[in-house]
Amino acid sequence: MDAQGTLNPLPPIPAEEYKSRVAKMQELLDANRLDAMLVTSEDNYRYLTGFDSPTWVNLTRPRYCVVPRAGEPFLVVPANAAIICERTAPSIADVRTWIAPNPADDGVSIVADGLRSFATKYKRVAAELGAESRMTMPIGDFLRLKDMLAPIEIVDGFKFLLALRMVKSPAEVARIRRIAGIVSDSFDALKGSLRVGQSELEAGQIFKIDMLKRGAHTVPYVCVSSDRGGYRSINVGPCERTFNKGDLLMLDTGSAFEGYYCDFNRNYVFGKPSDELQGFHQLVWDSTEVGLKAVRPGVRMCDVWKAMADYLAANAGKGYLRKKQGRLGHGIGLRMCEPPSFSGIDETVIKAGMTLTLEPSIAFPVPGKDGTEERVVVHEENILVTEKGCELLTRRAPRELPVVN
Amino acid sequence: MDAQGTLNPLPPIPAEEYKSRVAKMQELLDANRLDAMLVTSEDNYRYLTGFDSPTWVNLTRPRYCVVPRAGEPFLVVPANAAIICERTAPSIADVRTWIAPNPADDGVSIVADGLRSFATKYKRVAAELGAESRMTMPIGDFLRLKDMLAPIEIVDGFKFLLALRMVKSPAEVARIRRIAGIVSDSFDALKGSLRVGQSELEAGQIFKIDMLKRGAHTVPYVCVSSDRGGYRSINVGPCERTFNKGDLLMLDTGSAFEGYYCDFNRNYVFGKPSDELQGFHQLVWDSTEVGLKAVRPGVRMCDVWKAMADYLAANAGKGYLRKKQGRLGHGIGLRMCEPPSFSGIDETVIKAGMTLTLEPSIAFPVPGKDGTEERVVVHEENILVTEKGCELLTRRAPRELPVVN
Repeated sequence: MDAQGTLNPLPPIPAEEYKSRVAKMQELLDANRLDAMLVTSEDNYRYLTGFDSPTWVNLTRPRYCVVPRAGEPFLVVPANAAIICERTAPSIADVRTWIAPNPADDGVSIVADGLRSFATKYKRVAAELGAESRMTMPIGDFLRLKDMLAPIEIVDGFKFLLALRMVKSPAEVARIRRIAGIVSDSFDALKGSLRVGQSELEAGQIFKIDMLKRGAHTVPYVCVSSDRGGYRSINVGPCERTFNKGDLLMLDTGSAFEGYYCDFNRNYVFGKPSDELQGFHQLVWDSTEVGLKAVRPGVRMCDVWKAMADYLAANAGKGYLRKKQGRLGHGIGLRMCEPPSFSGIDETVIKAGMTLTLEPSIAFPVPGKDGTEERVVVHEENILVTEKGCELLTRRAPRELPVVN
Repeated sequence: MDAQGTLNPLPPIPAEEYKSRVAKMQELLDANRLDAMLVTSEDNYRYLTGFDSPTWVNLTRPRYCVVPRAGEPFLVVPANAAIICERTAPSIADVRTWIAPNPADDGVSIVADGLRSFATKYKRVAAELGAESRMTMPIGDFLRLKDMLAPIEIVDGFKFLLALRMVKSPAEVARIRRIAGIVSDSFDALKGSLRVGQSELEAGQIFKIDMLKRGAHTVPYVCVSSDRGGYRSINVGPCERTFNKGDLLMLDTGSAFEGYYCDFNRNYVFGKPSDELQGFHQLVWDSTEVGLKAVRPGVRMCDVWKAMADYLAANAGKGYLRKKQGRLGHGIGLRMCEPPSFSGIDETVIKAGMTLTLEPSIAFPVPGKDGTEERVVVHEENILVTEKGCELLTRRAPRELPVVN
């Protein structure tokens, strides 16, 4: 294959780092009067244990990790997954199994017994319940587990995992840096493959293939959006629409290397753009510049949002803020989108080691068949917060729209 | 790009088909004394509405669909997703929005009001709670919703969706047939790209790229497993291990076209295999043959399982059944793995139009450093149940192990 060198794995995240994450989780549990935490979702499971397998795509069998306030965590996995634990989660010695699928008891009684054995001090255990969490088990089983544990209380512990996960270790940053570099290269190369008459589906496929050739491990999120003078949405998959002269095209991707995501987009215009369209592109690019200057430890997410949003509003001309998007960027890591958000209501204080996206967008009218139609331009970069400010993980997009002739 | 012709979309699934699915769901709701059903997960959402977007990878914002016992369903989506509904779910006219992320109320109050307005007859509503379901919203919000609705009861409705989804329409079968054909071609082509000294990671990447080149839309599940004289697991991602003469290699994929999955594997051996290894491969191939002959409408899943398992046990020689796998095949569709299962406890009666995998495996010992080590061979095909029996959707693997020299 092409460029196979880029598949070179990074040094593995050592067992000590996983043990230290678990120890920090245990401190948070005790400080919050919690006896244990139940973890079920792919990203949190991998964060605490290293467990790594495509098997999360298979929704038949759930997997559980129980972290007690003190002592050793244990995993509860289907018998056929024990070997995945052995290979990818060697820091966890205690692996309990059942033969799945078994709808009558898919691991729930083992989890209940384990949680109950730990819940002796505070009679409170935590689970992934809070905003942006996704509990990855049948919720009928969770309700049953809740009844089995009563009067032991189950409260949210997702916020503690988030607090730990927001600041990345050097090993985590290296993975995000790798994938952001791969995708930066793919976006640069893509310009030469685009042409009038091509469909969004074709462009998206070329882009996915190129990212894999350069060493991306997974390319689960590829949005492609194009239309005359600007696109209509930034969250749609590619369709059969073919490119015409005068179109603005956007591709956006959440792609991953060893489980860690980048998330950014690039714009391309077919033929020379109007001054107005060029202006809107430069506006979101300049708003990103405002964000790059505003981000530093100690500043709140909402402060950076305000600096970027104010800049957009003050310079929008015929354009206007897209309130329906709700934010102008977010965290990246084991998820493509994770807290915190650059929004008006997120008061999270920025710390060195956070990995974030800056993602300003603007809406504007273009003449349509029946009056005006709404169009959008969005621009996104990925950054690492440093001690004094921030550093780009993506290769900065050009301020002038790349033209496909 | 290569082979771009294969990207040609199939005729879209018409709005009438989505409306008919909703109508059947409504019949099931009323027959089971339920006022409405709340749907949150990607596959069920797409099944009922057509909603199609890569945005499910982003876990920040949930999406809700409410199907009443009678009348029109409605969607509750973040404001920035309304355009996705307009484009991909035109059969649903009622789309309600909120600006997300808003941790204080991410759509929950709109959903609660809607469910409450319908829950007037039976005072019971359904949600995705049962075995193999995944509710795709924060469960803290679900518990809050439960409290807001009380005394209205929330019970499982996932089983009704499954009942509908198990039998595929011609449009659904066409999509599964397309992806099974693409992947069959990729597996055939892969043999020429394999060589001693290559790593599992490289082989996996070549395979992913080839499937995309042939028109697969997504390749989320790619397992690669290799070892001397047989592999150790069938659910692990590719690693740095390089191939040696005497290795058995397996690649397994759940890949999709327009949202519909195939799920099957192929085996390759490096150099002439031992008679014993060849025998175990032929055993699982022959057991698949037993399954192909046993599947027909009216037979139960557990009966086919028994026929295949009995054949394996009776002819295993030094080998033995892998009880820890729990089953010998399963349903495929909008999920890579969906009910029913070819297991000893699944009494689901097979119907024409079901799409299933037959996936027999066998374990056996090989001499190792310290005594014997366990190895596995698995073989999988995808089928469509017809009026009189079944039909292969995959190109049947050769009975003789393909040899890489």
